[in-house]
Amino acid sequence: MIYEDVLKNPDLYDFTVPTIGSPKVLSPLLQRQFVADDERISFSSQVKNIINQIRTCEIFPSFEKAGPRKHIFYKPEKTRVAIFTCGGLCPGLNDVIKGLVSVLNMEYNVSDVFGIRYGYKGLTQSSSFPPMALDIITLDKIHNQGGTILGSSRGNQDPKEMVDELTRLNINILFCIGGDGTLRGAMAIAKEIAERNLQISVIGVPKTIDNDINFVEKTFGFETAVQVAAQVISSAHSEAEGAENGIGIVKLMGRDSGFIAATATLANSVVDFCLIPESRFNLEGSNGLIESLAIKIKEKKHAVVVVAEGAGQELFGGEFANNDSAENVLQKDIGGLICEEITNYFSRFSNSVSIKYIDPSYQIRSVPTVATDAVFCYQLAQYAVHAGMAGKTNTLIGHWNNFFTHVPIELATGQRRKVDLDSALWRGVLSVTQQDNYLN
Amino acid sequence: MIYEDVLKNPDLYDFTVPTIGSPKVLSPLLQRQFVADDERISFSSQVKNIINQIRTCEIFPSFEKAGPRKHIFYKPEKTRVAIFTCGGLCPGLNDVIKGLVSVLNMEYNVSDVFGIRYGYKGLTQSSSFPPMALDIITLDKIHNQGGTILGSSRGNQDPKEMVDELTRLNINILFCIGGDGTLRGAMAIAKEIAERNLQISVIGVPKTIDNDINFVEKTFGFETAVQVAAQVISSAHSEAEGAENGIGIVKLMGRDSGFIAATATLANSVVDFCLIPESRFNLEGSNGLIESLAIKIKEKKHAVVVVAEGAGQELFGGEFANNDSAENVLQKDIGGLICEEITNYFSRFSNSVSIKYIDPSYQIRSVPTVATDAVFCYQLAQYAVHAGMAGKTNTLIGHWNNFFTHVPIELATGQRRKVDLDSALWRGVLSVTQQDNYLN
Amino acid sequence: MIYEDVLKNPDLYDFTVPTIGSPKVLSPLLQRQFVADDERISFSSQVKNIINQIRTCEIFPSFEKAGPRKHIFYKPEKTRVAIFTCGGLCPGLNDVIKGLVSVLNMEYNVSDVFGIRYGYKGLTQSSSFPPMALDIITLDKIHNQGGTILGSSRGNQDPKEMVDELTRLNINILFCIGGDGTLRGAMAIAKEIAERNLQISVIGVPKTIDNDINFVEKTFGFETAVQVAAQVISSAHSEAEGAENGIGIVKLMGRDSGFIAATATLANSVVDFCLIPESRFNLEGSNGLIESLAIKIKEKKHAVVVVAEGAGQELFGGEFANNDSAENVLQKDIGGLICEEITNYFSRFSNSVSIKYIDPSYQIRSVPTVATDAVFCYQLAQYAVHAGMAGKTNTLIGHWNNFFTHVPIELATGQRRKVDLDSALWRGVLSVTQQDNYLN
Amino acid sequence: MIYEDVLKNPDLYDFTVPTIGSPKVLSPLLQRQFVADDERISFSSQVKNIINQIRTCEIFPSFEKAGPRKHIFYKPEKTRVAIFTCGGLCPGLNDVIKGLVSVLNMEYNVSDVFGIRYGYKGLTQSSSFPPMALDIITLDKIHNQGGTILGSSRGNQDPKEMVDELTRLNINILFCIGGDGTLRGAMAIAKEIAERNLQISVIGVPKTIDNDINFVEKTFGFETAVQVAAQVISSAHSEAEGAENGIGIVKLMGRDSGFIAATATLANSVVDFCLIPESRFNLEGSNGLIESLAIKIKEKKHAVVVVAEGAGQELFGGEFANNDSAENVLQKDIGGLICEEITNYFSRFSNSVSIKYIDPSYQIRSVPTVATDAVFCYQLAQYAVHAGMAGKTNTLIGHWNNFFTHVPIELATGQRRKVDLDSALWRGVLSVTQQDNYLN
Repeated sequence: MIYEDVLKNPDLYDFTVPTIGSPKVLSPLLQRQFVADDERISFSSQVKNIINQIRTCEIFPSFEKAGPRKHIFYKPEKTRVAIFTCGGLCPGLNDVIKGLVSVLNMEYNVSDVFGIRYGYKGLTQSSSFPPMALDIITLDKIHNQGGTILGSSRGNQDPKEMVDELTRLNINILFCIGGDGTLRGAMAIAKEIAERNLQISVIGVPKTIDNDINFVEKTFGFETAVQVAAQVISSAHSEAEGAENGIGIVKLMGRDSGFIAATATLANSVVDFCLIPESRFNLEGSNGLIESLAIKIKEKKHAVVVVAEGAGQELFGGEFANNDSAENVLQKDIGGLICEEITNYFSRFSNSVSIKYIDPSYQIRSVPTVATDAVFCYQLAQYAVHAGMAGKTNTLIGHWNNFFTHVPIELATGQRRKVDLDSALWRGVLSVTQQDNYLN
Repeated sequence: MIYEDVLKNPDLYDFTVPTIGSPKVLSPLLQRQFVADDERISFSSQVKNIINQIRTCEIFPSFEKAGPRKHIFYKPEKTRVAIFTCGGLCPGLNDVIKGLVSVLNMEYNVSDVFGIRYGYKGLTQSSSFPPMALDIITLDKIHNQGGTILGSSRGNQDPKEMVDELTRLNINILFCIGGDGTLRGAMAIAKEIAERNLQISVIGVPKTIDNDINFVEKTFGFETAVQVAAQVISSAHSEAEGAENGIGIVKLMGRDSGFIAATATLANSVVDFCLIPESRFNLEGSNGLIESLAIKIKEKKHAVVVVAEGAGQELFGGEFANNDSAENVLQKDIGGLICEEITNYFSRFSNSVSIKYIDPSYQIRSVPTVATDAVFCYQLAQYAVHAGMAGKTNTLIGHWNNFFTHVPIELATGQRRKVDLDSALWRGVLSVTQQDNYLN
Repeated sequence: MIYEDVLKNPDLYDFTVPTIGSPKVLSPLLQRQFVADDERISFSSQVKNIINQIRTCEIFPSFEKAGPRKHIFYKPEKTRVAIFTCGGLCPGLNDVIKGLVSVLNMEYNVSDVFGIRYGYKGLTQSSSFPPMALDIITLDKIHNQGGTILGSSRGNQDPKEMVDELTRLNINILFCIGGDGTLRGAMAIAKEIAERNLQISVIGVPKTIDNDINFVEKTFGFETAVQVAAQVISSAHSEAEGAENGIGIVKLMGRDSGFIAATATLANSVVDFCLIPESRFNLEGSNGLIESLAIKIKEKKHAVVVVAEGAGQELFGGEFANNDSAENVLQKDIGGLICEEITNYFSRFSNSVSIKYIDPSYQIRSVPTVATDAVFCYQLAQYAVHAGMAGKTNTLIGHWNNFFTHVPIELATGQRRKVDLDSALWRGVLSVTQQDNYLN
Repeated sequence: MIYEDVLKNPDLYDFTVPTIGSPKVLSPLLQRQFVADDERISFSSQVKNIINQIRTCEIFPSFEKAGPRKHIFYKPEKTRVAIFTCGGLCPGLNDVIKGLVSVLNMEYNVSDVFGIRYGYKGLTQSSSFPPMALDIITLDKIHNQGGTILGSSRGNQDPKEMVDELTRLNINILFCIGGDGTLRGAMAIAKEIAERNLQISVIGVPKTIDNDINFVEKTFGFETAVQVAAQVISSAHSEAEGAENGIGIVKLMGRDSGFIAATATLANSVVDFCLIPESRFNLEGSNGLIESLAIKIKEKKHAVVVVAEGAGQELFGGEFANNDSAENVLQKDIGGLICEEITNYFSRFSNSVSIKYIDPSYQIRSVPTVATDAVFCYQLAQYAVHAGMAGKTNTLIGHWNNFFTHVPIELATGQRRKVDLDSALWRGVLSVTQQDNYLN
């Protein structure tokens, strides 16, 4: 676990946030209580860890606190801003876009805000779509819509070409809303900017419906995803109850980490088995999933299984693709495999089961946000604008111990946050499902 | 069209409702305005048709009006009732069950009501589940749950064995909640009962989420299905807008008729093409779906397609299974075919499209009812109980010209109701989509 | 009852639809199956009534069938159209507006469509808001929003001044979306137009969340209102169950008729008493509401009461305002009276009750439509455009026996449709609540 | 602010958790990673504060970490548990009840669990309701229902009488789900138990929809309340937009603190003024609410106001009741006052406004939980059971810096948590509404 690793080797991790230069412009947010650059948020709030750190660390592991700075780097009236969204849909993209525009327009009087169309591609020659001018009046109701008004695309583009385009458009701050791959693209852009000595800030708003960005406790869209996932579990439950030996199987997002599957299971406590990448399981044998299901079916006449898409990848044997490689490695269809194995098993005993397999992926990621998620989106946008105006760069907006934080992009990318099997979350799942009585 | 056929050849259709005997018991519903057995609902309410019928028909085509009768056939205190649900889930099953029990308990003082478990199978020796005693207190909140508390199964069983079981249980009225196949099973039971000269009424409550039972204007669950389907169309729309050349495809229920697809399209007027079994279309060629989509994509940069599962079956060529045969003929996957053809077409022009294909079937059929659907379920249950207590048999409860009706099961089964291409419904779809400008 | 009266005295009612002149322009809807002006929908579809009518009536009571005509009156390219919304909010206003614009733009190629701001007031000198140009592109997503993008206001204005304005704007068709008062205003405008011999059609789209326009079976917004009302009943039920002797009271819309209260009660079968204007009840005495509630509380420890705002107005004694006068007669607060009487009664017996009184009016009328309601809105809009283009005037779009109809405004206004106490609806309510065992 | 006060005077606050005795029984949770009693969660995670504390404090301010202990106090097979709910409804009561029963039954094999009916009253002679036996099978679906299956009541009872009853029932652990008043009642019970030297643990699960329990960052029900409140704001917005000079006013819960109002405003960014108890405002004068509204109306033609029920109480002058006294001090109706003042003001200028005032209180508190709230409820229940089984007493389950904590009831009651006007929450509200441009 990365988390434990920071506590043990804090000096290996660099929490320093880069800036584009030294801020001198007085912020127009005159009445605010400003945040100083040296205010920091402790990595851990467990007292034992804190005391240990004080004894042993050169550097006390902590994040730079996000918030409005008294002096900002860019003159509002001359600042030109670009925003884009990248990767698959996620609830809240429009909320973040509206939030960025709102804070820029209303709090910093920055009116030159542009939406880049269809992700990184919109910063290249191959795009036929000019940037959209964005203002708060015309975006008034987009927070009630799913999707992204800017459009999105996958994949990175040549940083040189993109920086050329940013220069051509006279952009000063670039907000990149996207996942691990997008953020690594943003790093490349920031590096190119640094090499050319340009004054363009690159600020990331981390987007992963899986909630697995490293050093970030919560990402936008996740709460909404859990809400829809929990409803789908009710559907699976009704289907399972509606048939003799009915089995409802729901495959949820989660390539590398099972946050959605685990949280939705805890939210809708009718699940019998919750399978996530972090917790290995067998299909066969007396502690395997299939025989466990058979016992459960005997007891209750029906069962509900929730499986994260990245769970049980090791069961596919040698064909198993490397987990750490590029974003677009397709996982093997674990839900399909489970369906197949169940069918095979029960057919051997001439015991009919009725399997209903639901994969609601597109319906989860395309809906408008639930209220607390919308709040989070607005706040992310607010802190992203503060960071950008303050001249921070190559940085994303995180959330840690209830504070918004600045996290160097490099620190947050590359590795994924995982479900801690000793956390309240996973303990709750084990309590709800009692699956360890069967699987182990 | 069956509808036109009745108007032309009314004498071919037998609207006569069978009864188990002559009702003599005075109904306990003392304050009610009762319905007489000869009250009837006109088949057509178009004046031209009416005048024509009067001139030409021996028999004026009309339904027996459902409702409480002054004299009933069964003595409430001695009446024993069985209820079962059969076939796939459909919103409203629990509403109908609660309604039947409520009306029997509260209006007729019939307290011996039993739920047969898992469909017809529960009436056979192979079932290990005894009937559940049902009363209104314990069922108080089931109308808020999807699924069926009785469980369901597919397929018919031997009528002899089932009538043996009904006799063993001393059942007087059997309520069969199910689709075309179930209703034909109910006919077989009624026939066996008639042959044995037993006094057991068989009353059907037609269940088809597709809304395609013949001689019945509306079936329960349909309005709820449309509500969920319309929401899924919003998801597909967000997905389509979120990508350059994004295409959202939603496959909806509708083997033989496109009521859900057409109604959901009209409910959420963002659809570009709505494909139903009743309206043929080509995939290829200048008026085919694929080139039409290409034009639309050029115009709007994205498109939404709604396709009923039974649409375009003729496109699969010689392998096409006969539509009129048994319930469980699986349709070919038209949604998959369309995805494939789109991919092929656009790859030829090195023009990338982004297809999102959604099949929300299980999520549509497992949810609780919307309010007006719940109302309809309760009323169906009410009229079903009135029919059963009055000694009607081999009859289902229909709805026509705003009245609940008695429809002989034989009349309603075998053929499916179809979307009339000259109806307000389909005209609305053509208006919303403007698809005839492309496809024809 | 008006309904019975038509059947007895059909000759007293004039079902003739006025037209602005003789249509000669060929409709651009070339592929349609057109409706002829003499196609009519029977008033009744009960066979006894039909046969009786044929024997006795000079005029067979029936509505003109709505739909596209082969010849239309206005040349599409020269037609200018105005739309306005009037009175309180109702779900579906934006759906109807979008529908009208969509059908005018897409089916008739009419592009000059204007939205009058804030009701009739927008057609007067006192308005400072110019008409909004409306087109289908910018209105694309308004069907997902509650409210009305045009704004609304109450009250009529001088017809002369409004016709002056229509003339100044060169309007040919005026679509009036509003209730009884609005429609009577539309009649005054149509009369003024006729006196001046102008070629301006006035088409009403009846709006009443109460669903009580005469000669119209269903109005838009009603199904959505019932959906929200049914959810509020669940809240009242939870509140009632949550306290010893808890009583949840929900006041719903319904000045003159109890359709929302009755239908929502049937939709959510947890209600103990449903009170509507059509069915008188006493507060005091052994069959009165308060003692009935006391019995119910004793039996169940809690109770739920649904009351239409116009119920029990006679209980307020001499102060009772005349029901038939202007739209804005405020009803006395029956919900408040019931709360007061319950409190008084129970305090006498030193028996504490816990009353929770909910009046969700604004939350019901401001939400987006449910799916089947959205379908109905689109179809109303479609048929309204067909009627307007065909040169019909002083007419509204009704719905009867599953057909859309033309109803002369005069016929539909003045009196309200009421809940028939022998209908399936009210019988259902009595079955669900069993209230007649207590109140009578 | 209490928060600041702890940082300045940590020694004044006692974070020590009482126990009923020394735990010796080995926990049946064999595979768990257990929490030791001396594991603690830092009060602050801002580094400056931590460093300052280390320099200056005798006692480092921190909470005892909640979680399963290796040794527990009660023998599971002999443990008898009682649960009750007290005070007004709040989303999640049933989730917590189900959670407690589930964890007791399934994780600790404690099967004697009883529900006390209707709050504290159920522990007295005056109650005629015996305790309900609770088990996980029959409670399977209650997490989908609003309200509380146990019933609730307000007000405390004589601790002696209640402890008599607990003794009579042989209860070992009492779970009290309720607000500030309930928790103080629980303290009185714990004190009485201590005086009698009984082995009964008293564990509180803090319930306040207002989210204002001291030393607890988040309470259950709050996220759901915000979700419903945000939807009601949409209704108010539609109403406001639907009329010329339309003003939608939403009164939300929040006697002493404005968390719901502020969070819902941030969730649905269409609000113009958000008024909370923590931030004073004037009605009259050039920076007062009324003139500010007049300016906003001039700019936008409509406005939306969200007001917490406890806001602006000082505007009622001398009649203002003391805020710190008993739970049931009724606040003056600030929403009504604002409506009145607006009407007066605009009538002076013969400028008509249209006010729609919505008070959705009962509808907010009676609904089922949203998913993340359901998760929180289950976890609270889990940690409450761990605390109870470990022999903790006079303690509630809190949440701080993402950990579940033990908080001595005395520490948490008496004073309320308030919205920090420098927090991300309130900064977000000011950003969304821009109200400081008008009000200050």
